[in-house]
Amino acid sequence: MAAPLARRAGRSAAAALWGAARGFASVGSDIVSAAPGVSLQKARSWDEGVATKFATTPLKDIFYGKKVVIFGLPGAYTGVCSQAHVPSYKKNIDKLKAKGIDSVICVAVNDPYVLNGWAEKLEAKDAIEFYGDFDGSFHKSLDLEIDLSAALLGRRSHRWSAFVDNGKIKSFNVEEVPSDFKVSSAEVILDQI
Amino acid sequence: MAAPLARRAGRSAAAALWGAARGFASVGSDIVSAAPGVSLQKARSWDEGVATKFATTPLKDIFYGKKVVIFGLPGAYTGVCSQAHVPSYKKNIDKLKAKGIDSVICVAVNDPYVLNGWAEKLEAKDAIEFYGDFDGSFHKSLDLEIDLSAALLGRRSHRWSAFVDNGKIKSFNVEEVPSDFKVSSAEVILDQI
Repeated sequence: MAAPLARRAGRSAAAALWGAARGFASVGSDIVSAAPGVSLQKARSWDEGVATKFATTPLKDIFYGKKVVIFGLPGAYTGVCSQAHVPSYKKNIDKLKAKGIDSVICVAVNDPYVLNGWAEKLEAKDAIEFYGDFDGSFHKSLDLEIDLSAALLGRRSHRWSAFVDNGKIKSFNVEEVPSDFKVSSAEVILDQI
Repeated sequence: MAAPLARRAGRSAAAALWGAARGFASVGSDIVSAAPGVSLQKARSWDEGVATKFATTPLKDIFYGKKVVIFGLPGAYTGVCSQAHVPSYKKNIDKLKAKGIDSVICVAVNDPYVLNGWAEKLEAKDAIEFYGDFDGSFHKSLDLEIDLSAALLGRRSHRWSAFVDNGKIKSFNVEEVPSDFKVSSAEVILDQI
């Protein structure tokens, strides 16, 4: 596969290759069309899950008609995600809103109940919307899936961020390895909006 | 498949069929041999995961030379699991220890960091050992896997319990449906020890 090779290349080479490497999800493409038929699952408690009849949210409802900053990470309760990635967006929420962003979204290959428990622990639910991708279909469609079984996680996602305006991907940042936190921070994306 | 059909039968029929339906994990069989090569992942924080080099625990270390009560459930942060199943064992830990049980173990198809976060939230880590089965291989081997995608969970496990003495399964209780909590409680297994 070309994409993983690109990811392992030097940062500038990876950045240059990125758009070319992923046909369906590069800068300029439509994120909803890139993941046809895919829905995400809004983070909620189990009781809320039952009350909402386990409803899911189609991507069009998340992205169309809005300016969205979305970031993805390998998993709830893992290191960089808890200590740096979510806090970076929580800390910069006012600056993001001031730039006209309607939604700041965190997505992960976790179920929505786990994600909810983690969001509450991080006290981040007021600032950030959390969505689960429990079966990984969103990240698979975007070619952002990665096998993290060596870290006892299984198939999860790369660490990434994107600025998406009315569905159109305006910027797209993917860390070379999920333990990196260099290009997917709120600080970087603020300069891209 | 015979086993799922047995599960959907009436309780007494299911109980009668149970041993017959699962060749490798029925009363009298060895749980370590039933899941050859399988390891579980002790619940821990991400930092502890890094410090322990993501080490896993072979089943023989968990079961041989000990009297163990183990219970499995569909997932951290889900309803019956949080509100009834774990509390049932937490509440009865002294009675279980008084019957000579060395370890009371909760296992789920979750990663060990999520499981750790949940165990801390339930204040259950002192009484119960939590182990992840992040890739589901333990539950697959025991024919306890179930697709709970309709509840936004994906492939998880049935709700079950077992009393295992030096690896040998002495009693084995599986709920007909994971939302049930009738045969897998600490109260039931106390009568089976």
